[in-house]
Parts: sequence; structure tokens; C-alpha cells
Amino acid sequence: MIEVDVPSGLPARIETPAPGDPRLARLSLNQRTTANWSLPEAVAGAVKAGLESIGVWREPLAEFGLEAGRALIDDAGLRVSSICRGGFFTDPATIDAALESNRAAIDETALLGAKTLVLVAGGLPDGDRDIVGARSRAADAIARLVPYARERGVTLGIEPMHPIFAADRGVVSTLQQALDIAERFDPVEVGVVVDTFHVWWEPDVLAQIARAAARIVSYQVCDWITPLPADSLLSRGMMGDGHIDFASLTAAVAAAGYTGDVEVEIFNAEVWAADGDAVVSTFARRYVKLVQPYL
Amino acid sequence: MIEVDVPSGLPARIETPAPGDPRLARLSLNQRTTANWSLPEAVAGAVKAGLESIGVWREPLAEFGLEAGRALIDDAGLRVSSICRGGFFTDPATIDAALESNRAAIDETALLGAKTLVLVAGGLPDGDRDIVGARSRAADAIARLVPYARERGVTLGIEPMHPIFAADRGVVSTLQQALDIAERFDPVEVGVVVDTFHVWWEPDVLAQIARAAARIVSYQVCDWITPLPADSLLSRGMMGDGHIDFASLTAAVAAAGYTGDVEVEIFNAEVWAADGDAVVSTFARRYVKLVQPYL
Repeated sequence: MIEVDVPSGLPARIETPAPGDPRLARLSLNQRTTANWSLPEAVAGAVKAGLESIGVWREPLAEFGLEAGRALIDDAGLRVSSICRGGFFTDPATIDAALESNRAAIDETALLGAKTLVLVAGGLPDGDRDIVGARSRAADAIARLVPYARERGVTLGIEPMHPIFAADRGVVSTLQQALDIAERFDPVEVGVVVDTFHVWWEPDVLAQIARAAARIVSYQVCDWITPLPADSLLSRGMMGDGHIDFASLTAAVAAAGYTGDVEVEIFNAEVWAADGDAVVSTFARRYVKLVQPYL
Repeated sequence: MIEVDVPSGLPARIETPAPGDPRLARLSLNQRTTANWSLPEAVAGAVKAGLESIGVWREPLAEFGLEAGRALIDDAGLRVSSICRGGFFTDPATIDAALESNRAAIDETALLGAKTLVLVAGGLPDGDRDIVGARSRAADAIARLVPYARERGVTLGIEPMHPIFAADRGVVSTLQQALDIAERFDPVEVGVVVDTFHVWWEPDVLAQIARAAARIVSYQVCDWITPLPADSLLSRGMMGDGHIDFASLTAAVAAAGYTGDVEVEIFNAEVWAADGDAVVSTFARRYVKLVQPYL
């Protein structure tokens, strides 16, 4: 398969890496990139493209069944690069339910043999304008989850979110802030997720990635595109279509010692409307050109 | 005039402060808030509402004429709180034209007797993914403008922009970054603009405001609203309609020693479609409840 619609700066034709290509060894399909695929479809699509790893979302996993999902993924020979996602514990009115849900997510992570549960802090509660307080509550909730996660061999991965989401999704806005929380704990207890979309603009992002070192528990890639799509939640682009320098970020993540999988996670209405196999082919091509050489 | 459509946390009825109310003494109409008003309309609207100050944009000023605009504003007895805006000097292909335009903007600032020219860095040039380089070029361009501005008694005000605009409008993303540049110069040469929309989420924003101290050359207010409007450039809200804590930010700006005007700057299609006088009345009410008490 040949890509003809390529972004600027890439050669006009890139061949899709075939299954077995060693460059694919660390590439993982985050399920949200092919959001219309069920878990079995995503597993089959990943295997067909020659991927060895998948980032699993809790909702489609629950729909299919936990034990059945585990067997499906195991039988396909895939690793689970991460479980998405826990967190959303900034609202005092719902903190007990949030902690219960997070404990269930930790159980699911352990059941699937994954090391990392991705945590998103959550936004400001309705009518609450105290972002400092919300950040503090997020850190407190993580502290309350650590013993439960540690007993089950699960590392909590704090994902800083781009400030575009500070009000309504995630009050932890920078890798620096995520590390300030994570460093209160042992690295096997709490790490950080580096997602290019969220951190590419951060003033000292390369220094923060170096600081993170062994705490990087997941590396997720997608691009920042302009003009920003109308729905900010679906504003992520395919690598190469936007403004992010994957070379420098990826090289920094590698230099920090990260040896895990690289998840492609794209929330985008156009990507979701496209054929799933074509989406996986496209991101595999982009990955081997823009990301993998710097790992 | 009584406001009935009030945001949560405000009393159901707020009286519009009348002209002469001392609480209005530092409130300034940034022209972009009433974008459909010409310069004479904006001047008349500000005077009618009892404001003493206006934030002038270069385009409507040029349309009306520089000398005529100066006379109009002087005759109305208004101060010019700032001139918006210079900058946009991250593209090497257009840097000479950008510097020439900025020198003209400095001349206009001096002509109007304003102290501050607001600078927006500019985004990434087309196809350029090196944000570190772009930030460096922005700082270099500021350095080249300083002697010209200093001779004319104009302070350059670096406005950090929310990271939502890092790719396409302004690569200086935090107050901390803006201060890192500004501190290379004398405070009369280069200061910073604190706009609540841009900095409210910044992890240590209160500490950075304190650090800024005498370098704060403009304080601009508007709110961060969700869901974010489809056009991110028009995503600003009226104070009180969103998630920003104006009390803490305003108190920090005051504690830092800022004694200048407070501009209301709202880019929003709904606000622009509304009657200009009603918009000014509304923001005056919100200002005296949410901002002015903390100055």
C-alpha cells in the first residue's frame, strides 16, 4: 500500500511497513484511534498490520467482557501497552465513586497483564474556579490509590493534559506538574504519560522528559493541527499533518531510557469515519518515517 | 440598567455602575470587545458608560486616521491604556516587514501618548516545527526593537498566549517565558501583559505575577468558557461566564504593584453580534463585582 496524500516534508511515496518489519516492534494501536472498532476488530486489525501491542480502553473491554477480552488479546499474541483510563477525581461530590471506579480499573490493568493505568486528573467541578484546589485533590486521590495499585503490580501513569482541557478534563497541565506529583512516590508506584499532543508546546519539555527518566510509563503520539477542529475534544491529527516535531520529542523520550511501546492515539472525527485498516496503515507509515527512527 | 442573566455565584441583580462611579476609574474598553464599532463609536460608547480609558487597535485607528484619532481620543478625555498590537515576528521570510510594521506601531503608540505596545510573538512559520527556534527568534526581534521604542518612551509589552495558540499565533506560552525574555531588558523597555484568558491555568501563575512586579504593563480580563466555541480565536467569554478565578489573579496583580487600567478584551462572535452599549454595560457590571473589588 502506497500513501499519496503526504504532508509537507515527507517523501511523496512511503511504503507501508509489512508485518514482521522490525520497525513495527514497538508500535501500539490505541483503541481510540479506531474508535468504531470493537475490541475483537481492533485486535484483528492490529495483528493484520503486524503490530504487537494494543492500548485498551475500559469501555469496549467491559462491553466484550474482561476474561474474554484477556483471552482474545493473549491468543492474538498482543501486549497491552496501557489501559485507558482512570482518574477524574477532582470533584469532592463524586470522589468515593471515582476511587471505586479507579480501583476497578487497577484490577482490570492487572488482569490484562498491563503495567500501566493511564490517569487523567479531571476538570473543575461545576461552578468551582479554584484550579489550585482541584490540582491538590487530584494529587490526594492518587495518594489514596497507590497502595491498592502497588499490591497489584500496577503503575499509575499521570497524563498531563494540554491547557485547552484544564477547565473541563484535566487540571494537571504540564509534564512538570505531573512529575511534581509523581515524585512524591516510588517510580514503580507512580509514573507519567508523555503524549505529544499535550506537551509539545511546554517551555522546557525536553528537560522535563529527561527529568522523568524511569517514570515514563507510556509514550503516546499524535499531532497538533491547525486550524483546530471545531470540537476541541476531537482536535488531534495524524503525525505529520501538524506542527509537532516528533524527532526531538522522541529522541528525548528514548534518551530518558524509555523502552516501552509507542501508542498512536488520535481523537478525530475524520479519522474515525475512515476505514480502520487504512487508518492503521497510514499511522504505521507515518510512524516509521517520523517517530521510529528517533527511538 | 439591571442584569437578569447572571452567572452562577453572582447575585441575581446587579446594577450597572453609573458614570462617575469611582469603581469605573480603571476600567478600559479594549476595542476588540466591541469589534463592530468604529473608533468614534468606541470612544463615544466608552464615554457614555463612564469609562476613562480605551485600548486601541491599530487597524480601526489607521482607518480613521492617526492624527484625527489622537484628537478624537484627547477631546473625549480618554486615556489610551494600550495599543494592540505589534509582534508576529517569528517568520524569517517576513522579519524585515514585521520589524518595519512594529516600528510604525511604536510611533503610533508614542503619538497617542500611550505607554505600552502589546506584542504577540507569532506562531510557527509554514512547515516549521521548531518551536524552540521560533521562540528564540521572537526574543531576538524584541531586542532589535528595544532601542527604537526606548527613544520614543514606549514600553514593549510581551503578551504570553494560551498554548491553544502556540502553533499559529504566539509561541510564547507562559508568563514565565515572557518574563524570561523581558528580564533581559530594563523594565521601562520591556514588560509583560497579563491576560487572564491566557495565563489562568499556568501552574505557578500567582508566583509569576509576583515576579513580574513592575513589569506588568497591562492587565486584560475575560473568561475561559466551556464548551469551547468552535472557532478557537473567538473562544473568550464575559467575566463570570466561565472558569477563571478573577479574585486571586486580580489580587496578585494588585499586590505586584500594578496601578494601571484594566482592559476588557473579549473575542467572541456572540458578544460581537450584540448591541455595543449593552456589551459595555454588561462588562462594567461584571467588572465591579468580579474584578474591581480585588484591585
